[in-house]
Amino acid sequence: MGALSDLQPILDRIGAEMAEAPDRGRVADYIPELAHVSDRQFAMAVCLPDGQCLTSGAADTGFSIQSISKVFTLAIALGRLGDQLWTRVGREPSGLSFNSVVQLETENGIPRNPFINAGALVVTDAILTGRTPREVLGEVLRFLREAASDDDIHINKAVAASEQAHGHRNLALAHFMAAHGNLVNPPALTCGTYFHQCAIEMTARQLAMAGRFLMGAPGAARLVSPARVRRINALMLTCGHYDGSGEFAYRVGLPGKSGVGGGILAIAPGRASIAVWSPGLNEQGNSQLGTLAIERLARATGWSVFG
Amino acid sequence: MGALSDLQPILDRIGAEMAEAPDRGRVADYIPELAHVSDRQFAMAVCLPDGQCLTSGAADTGFSIQSISKVFTLAIALGRLGDQLWTRVGREPSGLSFNSVVQLETENGIPRNPFINAGALVVTDAILTGRTPREVLGEVLRFLREAASDDDIHINKAVAASEQAHGHRNLALAHFMAAHGNLVNPPALTCGTYFHQCAIEMTARQLAMAGRFLMGAPGAARLVSPARVRRINALMLTCGHYDGSGEFAYRVGLPGKSGVGGGILAIAPGRASIAVWSPGLNEQGNSQLGTLAIERLARATGWSVFG
Amino acid sequence: MGALSDLQPILDRIGAEMAEAPDRGRVADYIPELAHVSDRQFAMAVCLPDGQCLTSGAADTGFSIQSISKVFTLAIALGRLGDQLWTRVGREPSGLSFNSVVQLETENGIPRNPFINAGALVVTDAILTGRTPREVLGEVLRFLREAASDDDIHINKAVAASEQAHGHRNLALAHFMAAHGNLVNPPALTCGTYFHQCAIEMTARQLAMAGRFLMGAPGAARLVSPARVRRINALMLTCGHYDGSGEFAYRVGLPGKSGVGGGILAIAPGRASIAVWSPGLNEQGNSQLGTLAIERLARATGWSVFG
Amino acid sequence: MGALSDLQPILDRIGAEMAEAPDRGRVADYIPELAHVSDRQFAMAVCLPDGQCLTSGAADTGFSIQSISKVFTLAIALGRLGDQLWTRVGREPSGLSFNSVVQLETENGIPRNPFINAGALVVTDAILTGRTPREVLGEVLRFLREAASDDDIHINKAVAASEQAHGHRNLALAHFMAAHGNLVNPPALTCGTYFHQCAIEMTARQLAMAGRFLMGAPGAARLVSPARVRRINALMLTCGHYDGSGEFAYRVGLPGKSGVGGGILAIAPGRASIAVWSPGLNEQGNSQLGTLAIERLARATGWSVFG
Repeated sequence: MGALSDLQPILDRIGAEMAEAPDRGRVADYIPELAHVSDRQFAMAVCLPDGQCLTSGAADTGFSIQSISKVFTLAIALGRLGDQLWTRVGREPSGLSFNSVVQLETENGIPRNPFINAGALVVTDAILTGRTPREVLGEVLRFLREAASDDDIHINKAVAASEQAHGHRNLALAHFMAAHGNLVNPPALTCGTYFHQCAIEMTARQLAMAGRFLMGAPGAARLVSPARVRRINALMLTCGHYDGSGEFAYRVGLPGKSGVGGGILAIAPGRASIAVWSPGLNEQGNSQLGTLAIERLARATGWSVFG
Repeated sequence: MGALSDLQPILDRIGAEMAEAPDRGRVADYIPELAHVSDRQFAMAVCLPDGQCLTSGAADTGFSIQSISKVFTLAIALGRLGDQLWTRVGREPSGLSFNSVVQLETENGIPRNPFINAGALVVTDAILTGRTPREVLGEVLRFLREAASDDDIHINKAVAASEQAHGHRNLALAHFMAAHGNLVNPPALTCGTYFHQCAIEMTARQLAMAGRFLMGAPGAARLVSPARVRRINALMLTCGHYDGSGEFAYRVGLPGKSGVGGGILAIAPGRASIAVWSPGLNEQGNSQLGTLAIERLARATGWSVFG
Repeated sequence: MGALSDLQPILDRIGAEMAEAPDRGRVADYIPELAHVSDRQFAMAVCLPDGQCLTSGAADTGFSIQSISKVFTLAIALGRLGDQLWTRVGREPSGLSFNSVVQLETENGIPRNPFINAGALVVTDAILTGRTPREVLGEVLRFLREAASDDDIHINKAVAASEQAHGHRNLALAHFMAAHGNLVNPPALTCGTYFHQCAIEMTARQLAMAGRFLMGAPGAARLVSPARVRRINALMLTCGHYDGSGEFAYRVGLPGKSGVGGGILAIAPGRASIAVWSPGLNEQGNSQLGTLAIERLARATGWSVFG
Repeated sequence: MGALSDLQPILDRIGAEMAEAPDRGRVADYIPELAHVSDRQFAMAVCLPDGQCLTSGAADTGFSIQSISKVFTLAIALGRLGDQLWTRVGREPSGLSFNSVVQLETENGIPRNPFINAGALVVTDAILTGRTPREVLGEVLRFLREAASDDDIHINKAVAASEQAHGHRNLALAHFMAAHGNLVNPPALTCGTYFHQCAIEMTARQLAMAGRFLMGAPGAARLVSPARVRRINALMLTCGHYDGSGEFAYRVGLPGKSGVGGGILAIAPGRASIAVWSPGLNEQGNSQLGTLAIERLARATGWSVFG
């Protein structure tokens, strides 16, 4: 790609194309707080190493980051526990849906990777040990606020409460891991903390800002070391979109992590931290237009890690 | 990384380290032709965009490329059929071992990706349709010889015969897909062709040379288009090491494809085509020292695609 | 039940009810030879310990016994190998469909029981060892003719040929077991023998006659010992109707074995050998009206083994 | 079998043989209350239609009936809900271990049968709806006391508390079914009730007495109708021993239900209600000596339902 001056027109064009896209996917409806969001919404934000942040669409509208929070709790957990974390969770794609319990049964309660629900519960459980949920959630928010250089990042309490009320599947995963000795805290406590981290609300701009440490932005190494950043990116690429991870890698070619709220955080190492948001989901539970928008951005910029 | 002059010492050092590595994995023993290869063997070759090719160890000793052949047949099949190929095979990591039949049963005979055995059989079946095995194998060899700029690449007939004699598992996969209407040719014919492609013998130098089209070497686009190269690299990264693909991405950070003969082809897009060979395998069936060698190379050079 | 004189009216009534049944299931259509049979057909035959055989419907029309043949090859195999057979095949219900390969993969190529296809292939393979398919099929026919006291029992060659032409799934199972060392003969040979045993044609009267040794008919012990008869009956009850075995036990309460040709052989120990035939199948692949007819017979006679 | 006078010597002989059996299985150790029971214990009780009850061994020592309670809650649930119960739970053997969650995932939260843990939780949930756990447990105890004609049957509170403390796996199953809409009450409430029903303590004599309604004892039809008894027996035969059900049918030939406390209730329809107890379990989690004792009893008496 040429100079920075070329990027804004690309974002504008993608934003215009997404506004007219006929197939917008299906908004998650398992809790009312997500279901009422309009599928017309679209936002995109791109932060560059020089500190600039370009946007398109509703980049200052908040949305529920949901599973994207798993990237940040993973970074925190690796900071606290180091490689010891990997005794409790694997690093392989699961080949199954995000909340499958089958793999847990055949592999002794060790989740495949930290981005499926079971694995994210283990990560949250790991950073919860010895502390209260309030302390852990405080740390997560502080991490996000510092990473994003923005203090206006909060938990949506109504979403958290609703997650809790519809949390049977995650509680099942947590009890299952507890039965295998792979959960330290009571399932209700770990799940409660997890439901709150998923209910964090951020704008596309804030999310792209918060992801800068993953592109290796100058100064970001104080948050997470370069070696660890590389590894988190690798996990995002192989496991970040559940059973659609291979497809995202094939089409987009960037590490990314999606959330059921319609957000996606994608990283072009050394080049950009990208956030998109569009609430309609595809069959794998990833943002339909968000994926398409990043695919077009990656093609227009040549940012694919694959050449 | 600095200048090219820095690379040879790195290769020399890695070669020396590998010669002394105590845990060399376990040589594949399902056919005698592979079992008799010494686990002391090690070779590495790195081809750069400027045409140079640096090596370490037994880089001119031939070995059985086995599943690495799947990368080349995939490139050929995409050239012949284009995206139509994807109606018969998926693009997702499988989360299961390389020759599992479970996924086929639950997903109607459509293999998860072209790098597990079932998927590779579909790819071979696709390029076999309307032709003889001899014609197909001729095309594969021509592709490899042209890609490697080396005419001295052949099929080891003894290995092919032995594969055939121990091919029940692949025949089971082929018949299973035939039962689901996802095989055009008789299972014995498709498998026979596949056994021969796996029995191709190459040196590490030849393999690194043959992989140059995947790093985007100047002029390589006449073999495979850049867009297609990106996608093959994406598939190699997410699926190239079976149920150890996530681990390879995490540790090495490069697209790669391993073979049970102990070879690995890895690509640093825009920077290098890398081949290693060491016959001992780890638990996932990938070269134990080969993986370690590429991990060290990627760390020393900063070639990881993840930053 | 009262005297024998009460039984014929029961059969007549059931035959009349079945003639008018609206939901007749779906005739198997995977080979043309089965697909062309009319779903209007119905037959029932009941043989009693005193030698009498009562019938209703088309009891002298031949049909393809298909998987019911597995009962007879099991009896032959147990006669030849005794309990040694159980090192190669289990005795548990599978909880999966009749031709599933999933269980084989997770349990090292040992089929769950002799009545799923994989298990029946092992049984046939066991009695084939050291002999030709012709010899084995000759023995099966001799056994049936002697058990039925009727020499007019033959293999339908067109059905056998058609099975062979559509036999990919069974060949997959056979190759899979060969890969696990649980098949002695070449898969094509074992499957070929199996396809022919499935293509045996019998009438309902012949089948009920042939099943008398399983009810403990006087003199039947010369064919199979009482202890072995009990065990075959137990296997029929727990595994005889694939993934509908529990349902058959619940509704009918008798050991039974169904075939995809629409036949069912059921045994009321000490009381009757029962054969029904109606080509339409239910979702589990068992005769829709055949199951209903035996259920009504068992209720009218009180023959359920469960009280 | 001959006269009743022949039965006591058979019981005595079996009791003597069991006292000397070298391989006594392994006592369940997941809760201390079960782990401390001596594996030397053995008891057997046989109730006949004429009201007599013969015993051998420690027939008046109480033990934890555990999963045998599922037979009685099933009888109660069928009495309350009739066939409507079957919309929430199936009637097929599972082919998997007693507490597997895999089947639930692939079959939408509908357990395979009422005797695996998930199915038993649904049954308990069904009779709990609209009532308190205290009321339900009161009904279960009243049912047992009336069936056994013995008021001295109680819940062991320490065992119940311990089950609760180690109940993660069952809570996982319950939450999982709740996520699929197949649980009416809060998982903790349904599981709490279930843990208490499993903690009921009975002697072998009491258990054999309580099982008389399943053999069709005179007057028992007031508790459960004959048609329903037949069906419960059918379920016990096909599903009563988890993944060892086929084996029990093959070896013993009687409907039966085991518990992890080492008890087994078996029914010879029209002939006997049989209870055995020996705490050591085999690999499938069923009483090692209990199974052997009933096998010998069935052989000596000819009570197998299979002829």
